[in-house]
Amino acid sequence: MTVAPHTSGGRRPRLLQEASLLEAPELLLRSVRGLSSSRTLTWLACVPLALFGLGVFNLSAHAAELPELTAAFLANNLWVLIGAILVIFMNAGFAMVEAGLCRSKNAVNILAKNLIVFGVAVTAYWLVGYSLMYGNSIAGGWLFFNGLFFDPTVTADMVKEAKLVPSLDFLFQAAFAGTSATIVSGMVAERIKFTPFVLFSAIKCGIIYPIGAAWIWNSAGWLKQLGFIDFAGTTAVHQMGAWGGLVGAIILGPRIGKFVGGKPQAIPGHNLSIATLGALLLWVCWYGFNGASELAFNQNVPYICVTTTLSASAGGIAATIVSQLRSGKPDLSMTINGILAGLVSITAVCNDISMPASWIVGAIGGTLAVLSVSWVDSLKIDDPVGAWSVHGTCGLWGTLAVGVFSTKHGLFTGHGFGQIGLQLVGAFAIAAEAIVTGIIVWNLLAVMFDGIRVHEKEEITGLDISEHGMEAYPDFATTSH
Amino acid sequence: MTVAPHTSGGRRPRLLQEASLLEAPELLLRSVRGLSSSRTLTWLACVPLALFGLGVFNLSAHAAELPELTAAFLANNLWVLIGAILVIFMNAGFAMVEAGLCRSKNAVNILAKNLIVFGVAVTAYWLVGYSLMYGNSIAGGWLFFNGLFFDPTVTADMVKEAKLVPSLDFLFQAAFAGTSATIVSGMVAERIKFTPFVLFSAIKCGIIYPIGAAWIWNSAGWLKQLGFIDFAGTTAVHQMGAWGGLVGAIILGPRIGKFVGGKPQAIPGHNLSIATLGALLLWVCWYGFNGASELAFNQNVPYICVTTTLSASAGGIAATIVSQLRSGKPDLSMTINGILAGLVSITAVCNDISMPASWIVGAIGGTLAVLSVSWVDSLKIDDPVGAWSVHGTCGLWGTLAVGVFSTKHGLFTGHGFGQIGLQLVGAFAIAAEAIVTGIIVWNLLAVMFDGIRVHEKEEITGLDISEHGMEAYPDFATTSH
Amino acid sequence: MTVAPHTSGGRRPRLLQEASLLEAPELLLRSVRGLSSSRTLTWLACVPLALFGLGVFNLSAHAAELPELTAAFLANNLWVLIGAILVIFMNAGFAMVEAGLCRSKNAVNILAKNLIVFGVAVTAYWLVGYSLMYGNSIAGGWLFFNGLFFDPTVTADMVKEAKLVPSLDFLFQAAFAGTSATIVSGMVAERIKFTPFVLFSAIKCGIIYPIGAAWIWNSAGWLKQLGFIDFAGTTAVHQMGAWGGLVGAIILGPRIGKFVGGKPQAIPGHNLSIATLGALLLWVCWYGFNGASELAFNQNVPYICVTTTLSASAGGIAATIVSQLRSGKPDLSMTINGILAGLVSITAVCNDISMPASWIVGAIGGTLAVLSVSWVDSLKIDDPVGAWSVHGTCGLWGTLAVGVFSTKHGLFTGHGFGQIGLQLVGAFAIAAEAIVTGIIVWNLLAVMFDGIRVHEKEEITGLDISEHGMEAYPDFATTSH
Repeated sequence: MTVAPHTSGGRRPRLLQEASLLEAPELLLRSVRGLSSSRTLTWLACVPLALFGLGVFNLSAHAAELPELTAAFLANNLWVLIGAILVIFMNAGFAMVEAGLCRSKNAVNILAKNLIVFGVAVTAYWLVGYSLMYGNSIAGGWLFFNGLFFDPTVTADMVKEAKLVPSLDFLFQAAFAGTSATIVSGMVAERIKFTPFVLFSAIKCGIIYPIGAAWIWNSAGWLKQLGFIDFAGTTAVHQMGAWGGLVGAIILGPRIGKFVGGKPQAIPGHNLSIATLGALLLWVCWYGFNGASELAFNQNVPYICVTTTLSASAGGIAATIVSQLRSGKPDLSMTINGILAGLVSITAVCNDISMPASWIVGAIGGTLAVLSVSWVDSLKIDDPVGAWSVHGTCGLWGTLAVGVFSTKHGLFTGHGFGQIGLQLVGAFAIAAEAIVTGIIVWNLLAVMFDGIRVHEKEEITGLDISEHGMEAYPDFATTSH
Repeated sequence: MTVAPHTSGGRRPRLLQEASLLEAPELLLRSVRGLSSSRTLTWLACVPLALFGLGVFNLSAHAAELPELTAAFLANNLWVLIGAILVIFMNAGFAMVEAGLCRSKNAVNILAKNLIVFGVAVTAYWLVGYSLMYGNSIAGGWLFFNGLFFDPTVTADMVKEAKLVPSLDFLFQAAFAGTSATIVSGMVAERIKFTPFVLFSAIKCGIIYPIGAAWIWNSAGWLKQLGFIDFAGTTAVHQMGAWGGLVGAIILGPRIGKFVGGKPQAIPGHNLSIATLGALLLWVCWYGFNGASELAFNQNVPYICVTTTLSASAGGIAATIVSQLRSGKPDLSMTINGILAGLVSITAVCNDISMPASWIVGAIGGTLAVLSVSWVDSLKIDDPVGAWSVHGTCGLWGTLAVGVFSTKHGLFTGHGFGQIGLQLVGAFAIAAEAIVTGIIVWNLLAVMFDGIRVHEKEEITGLDISEHGMEAYPDFATTSH
Repeated sequence: MTVAPHTSGGRRPRLLQEASLLEAPELLLRSVRGLSSSRTLTWLACVPLALFGLGVFNLSAHAAELPELTAAFLANNLWVLIGAILVIFMNAGFAMVEAGLCRSKNAVNILAKNLIVFGVAVTAYWLVGYSLMYGNSIAGGWLFFNGLFFDPTVTADMVKEAKLVPSLDFLFQAAFAGTSATIVSGMVAERIKFTPFVLFSAIKCGIIYPIGAAWIWNSAGWLKQLGFIDFAGTTAVHQMGAWGGLVGAIILGPRIGKFVGGKPQAIPGHNLSIATLGALLLWVCWYGFNGASELAFNQNVPYICVTTTLSASAGGIAATIVSQLRSGKPDLSMTINGILAGLVSITAVCNDISMPASWIVGAIGGTLAVLSVSWVDSLKIDDPVGAWSVHGTCGLWGTLAVGVFSTKHGLFTGHGFGQIGLQLVGAFAIAAEAIVTGIIVWNLLAVMFDGIRVHEKEEITGLDISEHGMEAYPDFATTSH
């Protein structure tokens, strides 16, 4: 049972909700999958009531007194709230980039995935994910749990110590959880069935992501204890999403027409206006992603925003130049991915790096993003929007960049290659978790849904018609393209 | 005459502006309607000067000293300013959702309506609306007025008591006023003439909305005194807009082709990319709508944002599932409306509800939004973008949800059905005001403009050409659709 | 060598970077221009290292203690950081407005310009621009310089005096610098070569803009000393960009088909949905542009946002009415430009004007924007998106409006026409700087790149294919338009 706002102090009465929610995953699965008769509807209406029992009616709210709110408490909570709002807004950015870089016949599907996934992510993360990530240890530094849901009670100590209130900490972390699912979306685009994708996202955000991220960010996590550094989630979020998506992309196989006679074919995106809008949205929202990962507002936050800006700028510039060098003309989709690459690359070290180094980290990230597209192609893996290159390749680069450029732990600070080694351990650990769980879950879903890939005919027609029965742009005539 | 910033203390010298602005509505009407000769232009240039007289040149600014700004004063004003900016940004969200869910041949018209309406709303609300809403009582709890415009003077007491400065209170409330007009826009889309719509919006935001909202939010309002609860405007804003739009939709009648042989026909939206973008924009901006309705920044604000998030998530999930149950496939436009339904449903009670209950409120809202579309269709009312279902049906549900789930006044807190009864009274009162004034104003406009609906031929061609002489996407070939 | 965050106190050890970066412009130029062989790639990888030398590895970070952060320090820095984020978000607004108001065959080019330009602007402004703008005088009030880059060290005095930290001051100013280049983009659209435009932007943001803006905003600048007033950049940013763009537009000449038999032809924009979205984005972001130009958070900021809102509203209303008077129908692109005109017009005086006057300033701005389009046409200058009318004409009007309506220095405050005279001097000075430098740089680029305009055939095909080898909307059939 959750406790209402305004209350403070007291123990955490969580027993009720733990008991009444054990059957949640099964119910959710059944209700989503076997939706064939409309009689199910009646039952569905009962599910939430069964789920939450009496916890819904909170009769125990006490309006306890808090001490006067200090400037630090107010500023910390206000800034991180703004950060949470910005990170939630990233869903719009990812939706526009991914939809814009795919074909119009799959646009509804991509938009629907990105739209519903945040709701699913929040629900799953609220149900169990947040507890798995920031709960107390139940298996050394490897597994954490604190019961279902969380207790939003604000205590006097939180105010005195200028801490984030629990609701805000949850919201900020839930926004991050959603991001890891969104990254997967790009890699499996234009060929995956809708329902298995949504279920994968629920499991990813509710279980896979929080378990791995806890290793890095829970104060008792084993990677944290080891000294692994990932300030705002290059590994915890971006690599986490990228590896899970890569497994999906490999299991799915390439889209029809991507490889002809063994040679990769360009399949251009249908709407570069919204893709560009999405890139700028993501850039802006990244100030919340990185800046609010300080989990406070202080003199360091603007510096973090500056290194983030410089890296994004350099990533965009480098990717544009490199694409021009390679193809003779500057490719807008490479500028877009270069900016995102710069952002991903700086995320782990943005608070502890000199400004020139942040520019270099971004420039290398932007370059790698362009080159990586060819590497992925040469492996016969189909990554429709370059999400692997941005989040996987640059996720790894950004993780290692901590070991090179950190002003406290980097290559030239007396730590030598030590931190780089630690960073490799962390990257490997998260990759392993994402890959192993990815293989299990994707295959499980494949069994449940008779494969996770749409049929050939549906793919050629487009997922919008086959999966959603509608078109994104019905008023416009399309090319035979 | 308004007083400049930096000043504090002193009486409110308002006489001048009250006198010089009595003729404003008449002038405005004449200038907007009879725009047939370009000689009018010369006169128009004089209008503003005539309107504002010497009030324009503020010679009385005194730079009085304020006490040191406290942390609470700064945080309260900063957060609500951010909230105001977010609520103003909702205009972009509504514009994208509405335009995206209508046909391309009417896109310019919808965009133009949404763009101009905020400017008109702000002007009308500044002229008279804010005073009608938060002025002193001139007829019990039913009518309030304080002279035209408002006094922006910041006093020492405001600083000491950490109150919002008058300019901010105005801006935040003006943003809300604009929303109520935007909701109307969706319900009358694709067949209403441009100028009558703009005039209706001016009257709605300047007079109808503030009078009704004062009943709820003015501390002396009769519904407020009675105990009616509407934290952030489910009734005051959303139902207010929905009922006014419903009257318009009924008077206008359905679009050509909506009902064929008595059966409702699907008229698909032309651009689901921007519609999805709009939904995510609205989601994000709703943190300002609900969170800043606390009118302060404190430990409750993040909690409000969490219940808002959970309800939106549940609304999107429920609407997707229900639409899949009903049609066999998940409908993206239902996911969009489900999210908005979740947001509207939680708005009245977001600060005083347990988290599981907020999820349930959203899930029920999302379900109702889908079902409501069929109900509206069965009544032969044409609501092109589902605005009634989102703001009307869920507006009513959200209003009643206070009586059920409020942790202080809900069904299981000793109040029994009492609060539900009060909520019904409030919902009925606002509906009555919106309906009665809607009938009067729409009919008045119909007389003035020889009907408020475009001619059949113009509707078939599209309002973009007939009302604006331009197309939204002239470079693209359209289907015969 | 820059100093890491967390540090405070100490001198500024800048010698190293000054020495190692002297060759930067030449290297940059070479690497961008002569990109013909992929062997260059190897060299490019060395450039950043050569550029930054050891400055990249910051070994000197000291974690000095700062005093407790005060409420004023936190609020000031938090608000201006939000302002910086909003101003950076304006890039998305400009990109959508400009792309939407041009033809689809040039959309990729416009999007690419707007996307890359912010990265280029930030890099150039960081390298040298910020120092040219806020450095110490090296030639009276005319030229300033402080070495390359900037020192991000936060000192105890900054905290005590509630000042902006250096990183934030840089970021906010860098965002403004980017805006001046974006304005140029609109005026030269649909016919300029990509690389010369990017290089012009780098020079504009890195050198031309900061030198001129320093006259106005550096406390020792000669225009500042003279008494010229430009609160948030109507002249410093908007006129600065507009004059530079005008020179480019004149040198380029009109687009093919713009003037037929001496008569201007309408070339309609291809996507009014994104253009409208862009306008609303710019409106919202302008609260950062104007509101955060207070460089603090206090009781005046909301007032600034109110005058900004009223002016934007009036600009949109006036432009719509005037366009309806002139053509018989309200033109959406005029509503868009009218809102932007209102915003530009109020920017210089938004903090020191009565509310009625702010409405009038916007209404006049919106009217001028519409009329100005015809004036520009009659001069046979091709300004594809009306950027001159918005930023040039209304930039001048807004600059003069300070002299008329300022409550402290305006026409009726005892200053008579004195301030208007000063405003004219400032406007003339900035125009002169922008024009002279514009002529020099555009012609220099024309020599380097064998003309700055694409070939006739390429222009007819569209710049997307000729300059980028891709289309913005490949899935859609286009009209022969």
